[in-house]
Amino acid sequence: MNFDYSEKVKSFQEKVTSFMDEHVYPNESLYEAQLNEQDSRWSGIPPIMDELKSRAKEQGLWNLFLPDHTYGAGLTNLEYAPLCELMGRSLIGPEVFNCSAPDTGNMEVLARYGSDEQKKEWLRPLLNGEIRSCFSMTEPEVASSDATNIQSQIQRDGNEYVINGRKWWSSGAGDPRCRLAIFMGKTNPDAPRHEQQSMILVPLDTEGVTVNRMLPVFGYDHAPHGHGEIDFKNVRVPDSQIIWGEGKGFAIAQGRLGPGRIHHCMRLIGAAERALEELCKRVQSREAFHKPLADQGVIREWIADSRIELEQARLLTLKAAYKMDTVGNKQAKTEIAMIKVVAPNMALKVLDRAIQAHGAAGVSNDFTLAAQWANARTLRLADGPDEVHRRQVAKLELSKYKE
Amino acid sequence: MNFDYSEKVKSFQEKVTSFMDEHVYPNESLYEAQLNEQDSRWSGIPPIMDELKSRAKEQGLWNLFLPDHTYGAGLTNLEYAPLCELMGRSLIGPEVFNCSAPDTGNMEVLARYGSDEQKKEWLRPLLNGEIRSCFSMTEPEVASSDATNIQSQIQRDGNEYVINGRKWWSSGAGDPRCRLAIFMGKTNPDAPRHEQQSMILVPLDTEGVTVNRMLPVFGYDHAPHGHGEIDFKNVRVPDSQIIWGEGKGFAIAQGRLGPGRIHHCMRLIGAAERALEELCKRVQSREAFHKPLADQGVIREWIADSRIELEQARLLTLKAAYKMDTVGNKQAKTEIAMIKVVAPNMALKVLDRAIQAHGAAGVSNDFTLAAQWANARTLRLADGPDEVHRRQVAKLELSKYKE
Amino acid sequence: MNFDYSEKVKSFQEKVTSFMDEHVYPNESLYEAQLNEQDSRWSGIPPIMDELKSRAKEQGLWNLFLPDHTYGAGLTNLEYAPLCELMGRSLIGPEVFNCSAPDTGNMEVLARYGSDEQKKEWLRPLLNGEIRSCFSMTEPEVASSDATNIQSQIQRDGNEYVINGRKWWSSGAGDPRCRLAIFMGKTNPDAPRHEQQSMILVPLDTEGVTVNRMLPVFGYDHAPHGHGEIDFKNVRVPDSQIIWGEGKGFAIAQGRLGPGRIHHCMRLIGAAERALEELCKRVQSREAFHKPLADQGVIREWIADSRIELEQARLLTLKAAYKMDTVGNKQAKTEIAMIKVVAPNMALKVLDRAIQAHGAAGVSNDFTLAAQWANARTLRLADGPDEVHRRQVAKLELSKYKE
Amino acid sequence: MNFDYSEKVKSFQEKVTSFMDEHVYPNESLYEAQLNEQDSRWSGIPPIMDELKSRAKEQGLWNLFLPDHTYGAGLTNLEYAPLCELMGRSLIGPEVFNCSAPDTGNMEVLARYGSDEQKKEWLRPLLNGEIRSCFSMTEPEVASSDATNIQSQIQRDGNEYVINGRKWWSSGAGDPRCRLAIFMGKTNPDAPRHEQQSMILVPLDTEGVTVNRMLPVFGYDHAPHGHGEIDFKNVRVPDSQIIWGEGKGFAIAQGRLGPGRIHHCMRLIGAAERALEELCKRVQSREAFHKPLADQGVIREWIADSRIELEQARLLTLKAAYKMDTVGNKQAKTEIAMIKVVAPNMALKVLDRAIQAHGAAGVSNDFTLAAQWANARTLRLADGPDEVHRRQVAKLELSKYKE
Repeated sequence: MNFDYSEKVKSFQEKVTSFMDEHVYPNESLYEAQLNEQDSRWSGIPPIMDELKSRAKEQGLWNLFLPDHTYGAGLTNLEYAPLCELMGRSLIGPEVFNCSAPDTGNMEVLARYGSDEQKKEWLRPLLNGEIRSCFSMTEPEVASSDATNIQSQIQRDGNEYVINGRKWWSSGAGDPRCRLAIFMGKTNPDAPRHEQQSMILVPLDTEGVTVNRMLPVFGYDHAPHGHGEIDFKNVRVPDSQIIWGEGKGFAIAQGRLGPGRIHHCMRLIGAAERALEELCKRVQSREAFHKPLADQGVIREWIADSRIELEQARLLTLKAAYKMDTVGNKQAKTEIAMIKVVAPNMALKVLDRAIQAHGAAGVSNDFTLAAQWANARTLRLADGPDEVHRRQVAKLELSKYKE
Repeated sequence: MNFDYSEKVKSFQEKVTSFMDEHVYPNESLYEAQLNEQDSRWSGIPPIMDELKSRAKEQGLWNLFLPDHTYGAGLTNLEYAPLCELMGRSLIGPEVFNCSAPDTGNMEVLARYGSDEQKKEWLRPLLNGEIRSCFSMTEPEVASSDATNIQSQIQRDGNEYVINGRKWWSSGAGDPRCRLAIFMGKTNPDAPRHEQQSMILVPLDTEGVTVNRMLPVFGYDHAPHGHGEIDFKNVRVPDSQIIWGEGKGFAIAQGRLGPGRIHHCMRLIGAAERALEELCKRVQSREAFHKPLADQGVIREWIADSRIELEQARLLTLKAAYKMDTVGNKQAKTEIAMIKVVAPNMALKVLDRAIQAHGAAGVSNDFTLAAQWANARTLRLADGPDEVHRRQVAKLELSKYKE
Repeated sequence: MNFDYSEKVKSFQEKVTSFMDEHVYPNESLYEAQLNEQDSRWSGIPPIMDELKSRAKEQGLWNLFLPDHTYGAGLTNLEYAPLCELMGRSLIGPEVFNCSAPDTGNMEVLARYGSDEQKKEWLRPLLNGEIRSCFSMTEPEVASSDATNIQSQIQRDGNEYVINGRKWWSSGAGDPRCRLAIFMGKTNPDAPRHEQQSMILVPLDTEGVTVNRMLPVFGYDHAPHGHGEIDFKNVRVPDSQIIWGEGKGFAIAQGRLGPGRIHHCMRLIGAAERALEELCKRVQSREAFHKPLADQGVIREWIADSRIELEQARLLTLKAAYKMDTVGNKQAKTEIAMIKVVAPNMALKVLDRAIQAHGAAGVSNDFTLAAQWANARTLRLADGPDEVHRRQVAKLELSKYKE
Repeated sequence: MNFDYSEKVKSFQEKVTSFMDEHVYPNESLYEAQLNEQDSRWSGIPPIMDELKSRAKEQGLWNLFLPDHTYGAGLTNLEYAPLCELMGRSLIGPEVFNCSAPDTGNMEVLARYGSDEQKKEWLRPLLNGEIRSCFSMTEPEVASSDATNIQSQIQRDGNEYVINGRKWWSSGAGDPRCRLAIFMGKTNPDAPRHEQQSMILVPLDTEGVTVNRMLPVFGYDHAPHGHGEIDFKNVRVPDSQIIWGEGKGFAIAQGRLGPGRIHHCMRLIGAAERALEELCKRVQSREAFHKPLADQGVIREWIADSRIELEQARLLTLKAAYKMDTVGNKQAKTEIAMIKVVAPNMALKVLDRAIQAHGAAGVSNDFTLAAQWANARTLRLADGPDEVHRRQVAKLELSKYKE
């Protein structure tokens, strides 16, 4: 047992930290300003983003998330996690390093399960940060907390598949660079429960694909990325676009979600760290009732509890990453379910305290606290609500004592 | 002791409930649609609002908040509170009945402390719902949780006052009908601590008044109402615009805040009631893991806890209203401080559970849950953060046992 | 709606408060000392108790709990509740006024459902405070949270009933004056679910009744009262001892529990009030880090939250009492379930804060905080665990929206 | 970074686990029975304890806590922590392995700071488990959360010291084998704040030492160990009994508390693990409302939250141990303060859920849940209340951002 980061990790941490300090934080408001200067917040990508991406690529801080040596940095989950945390401190951070969801998960799916042709067509430009992609799984009509509820259909017709269904929360669908959806639906409703589903690649410009609207999150549009409600009506794609094969949807989803959850959690930990930092600075610069806010006992308690909750959430997430690396996603199932509950709830608490310490400024956009909060809140729902993960943890715990 | 509403209240409750059912809820999305059809969300008021206001006025459901018989409905706080709750169920509700903040508080100030001239010029059109107003107290540079921190100046110069200061969170300043700010500042920084401040009426079109920007709340712009950051630079108004007299700012603020807090709290209770109703309906219409969500024990616990917290918050708020009516604002100080902590926190919990029960739909604008949540969150800060109210409650409690 | 106590209640409050101040609090440690001086803590009743009882009787502060005018004070639930609160401030308080559980519930059952003979034999001496009684419902072998689980049998044999079963948590069974158990068991396991059970009077000296042991609560023996585990083996009583009739057990239990829950909750509210008072005094008399504990912001927050939670719990309990008085136990079902969750949890929080503020002294018996805590903790289980009451509240809430 | 226990640790874990399974758990009730058979619970040590100790010593499971190779097992904090956890699962566990507080801390003080003579006289018999000792620091008259409050005096008089003061919570003072107190008091009230205090060895049979009474904890007497209130009146000991030298009291306390806190926390983690195990077993064996309690969603949530909180608390405690081993107590200050808050609160929550799941049985002594709860509750106060540790964490956090 050893709680120190490796030298390799420390060196990456320094590089990413420097990059964030020098290039990312100072450009957050420029990014927002450029976005607002456009005709519409959806019409293009703020130019500063491409500059930042080029610079990160130059410095070798690119595709760090991808454990595959051929395509990415070849870092383990345990090595990438602390870097992911640093990127998550800024809402524009992950994209700068080509490490933002849902592209990371989509790239990993393509790298692990994609055919050579699929890799060439889609993985390459994604790895280069030229195009973006979305993931179309959740449906408005059913409780997606139970994935077997999915109703969309993928029906074979000759050497094509015909796709029908309404999806929403297809994040990234608003991005003008978004070219691809990974679509989940049922190829065979009569197969055993976990073999009914398949995943298929759908170019967004295919006939029958309509982005109805972009869904806001607590008032945030998340432009130009956004969360799309998309109709797929008799959409036809060649059968070569199926990933891995019919009935593999569930298996791919399981593989995809493990690392994705680590990433989500570590980004939230980064967001919470930054919030705590901002809280500490703010309360040392403001006075009320004749002393700095920092001398109020209640605020000190917020700080202590935040530090305590942060440390614990990070350790548990790193342990989950370690187990994924050493004994595999399946053996790490409990840990992954646990962090998916812990990290968003911890981040929400820390962010909420930071908001409260900032007074009304905290709920505005003068700080990124409110936006990060909204983001963290969705992560109590995205990739399964807390309740489903707790169910999973309890089931595994109870099974230890079953006769 | 008696826990039943009076016949008078019951009759009003029926009328307001019917009005909400028939006219308000069915037009919420129309209101939003009309707002979005405009050139800008700030450029005008959705026409449906005027229709609704006329109808409410016709039915005598107008200015119910004003205890003064001459100008308003003459209801006591205890009588108005349960009606205010009903209006708060919809974000567009209070305005329909000319009962929305900050106009209610401003009208009350004018009715109680205004000169005849001030009443004629400002109170009349406000009571008629022709114009709107804002309240300029909070400042960006200092912690407003301690009201003695206020830095703005109101300096006499002949028979004029010269006003200087930067204010923010002047809610309603974005409304094209907003004509008036009640401005709080120091007329005499050398006076005893609670006599330094005054309130003065500033027409928004006076030279030197500039609305710099509108502040968002968790991504919501709250257009066309909005929250303004306003610069007052050498703004000159006749000395007749001072309210009640120099040095009365604090006293007026105290008087203004009591009923205002009841209103805020009751609206939040209404919002929470509606959220619980929506939660109950949603979970009976969705299935996961082979049974309705309503049969999940955890969700039943949310429902029970919500009902429990709601009932308690309502009783405490009604008791605060009762004490204000019977022994006065000063004697009701503890109760008012308590409800200001209880109601927003209760509403946040109930709304959060309802959001969670709605899945991702809950964080979008397909329901009003997320918007109501953002609203409730600001009320842990507006009119004093929780921490200041808890301080107050503790101080009064400890004083019982001081030797 | 009116939140003031009636003059009648105020007058009783004054009398009970004076009595507590003059006679009860000053004798708490004497009671404990006399108990410890005995051969065994179970062998007798501290003489001070009889003195206090005589004095209370003299002053007409006797059997205040009983709404029946013939036998008791004839106060409504709403009138008795605030007096019950005062008695609950001391662990020896309720007995002094002949208002302690389970005798209160047992007396009420006898007054409402007992035959004349039963009243003469048992109700009279109970009302006089000459004997005590216990209530034998809970069983060790089954989850009593679901009352239909009860396994004990009451079988008719000629004009006798033969009783078999093991009961525990028969509170009061340790008292040397305890003469009677009200026993619940099944007379007809084949009847409809809520008509299988009956209640029967069993003199404790009947052959076949054995008190196996007294159960401690968090280390407290609660002597001389205590909680008995009792075996009933072929216990024979005349059939005249059945209460109301066969199959009425459930109905009686429902009737018995309503007022009993009000009493439990109000006593807990009293205990919490006293704890808050002791907390406030303690923190004003101790210093740490160069200032009184009372000046620590965190402790002020405890005080404020305690006051807030107390007020809400009291209002809800009073409303439950009011509803019982005005629309009956059945209509007050939700309120009764709610307070049964609220009051113990509130009391535990307030007591826990008071303990923490007292430092290590708080967990000892130098104050009654720890003992009151243990008592409150059992009330999250006794008369149904929190979870069952929440279930009930949720069920009623959901039913409002069932199609 | 590596989250696996070393082979050495795993081997010890197996041995301790086997020992607990075979010898400790099966004898818990025998220990209690033997204690109750004595004339008084304070008059002797249940014979089973000596048998268990002999057996543990034989198997080399003895003094595992002592990092010093000469006197103990020479394990690091990180190596001992998981073994300490296992021992903590039983209330009689730690003593069996000669690893129980406060002897462990006292032995460590003697091993690190004691003179050769002191070691010979006191350390040897303690290491052999022949005698026991107590630690007399806390005083009834002052808030011990601030250690500078201590009022006891240690005054030099020739080649003796004269000791005066009243101490309480001297744990272990009730044990008939207890021979020694380590006493903390002021040798020089005029010295700099952290050099006023000294520690001195006081044989309990010295004239002037009187154990006034034993303090209960939530009704538990903790016999034969117990918590003593001790008067020291003009107690004279040779000056050779001072530890390390005058003015070193604070420094020794700091050194003593670090490992002691790890031990307390790990024992609590063990207690919580056992509680969760018992909870899981119980709910699979009981039915209510037609299904096993284990199928109630709310109970599953308790299980999940317990597992989640346990894992996090353990990781943080192990990290604190690791930092103590690698960078020293001083650098590990934040981590030590954090676990002292986390572990007791976590254990209380898990134990409370287990109690609730056991119904009324949970508050009795049929399980060790209630006793473990009372124990955990005191640890929110012992060695500094939560609030002092949070203060410490906040101070260190804020200092990162001080200009």
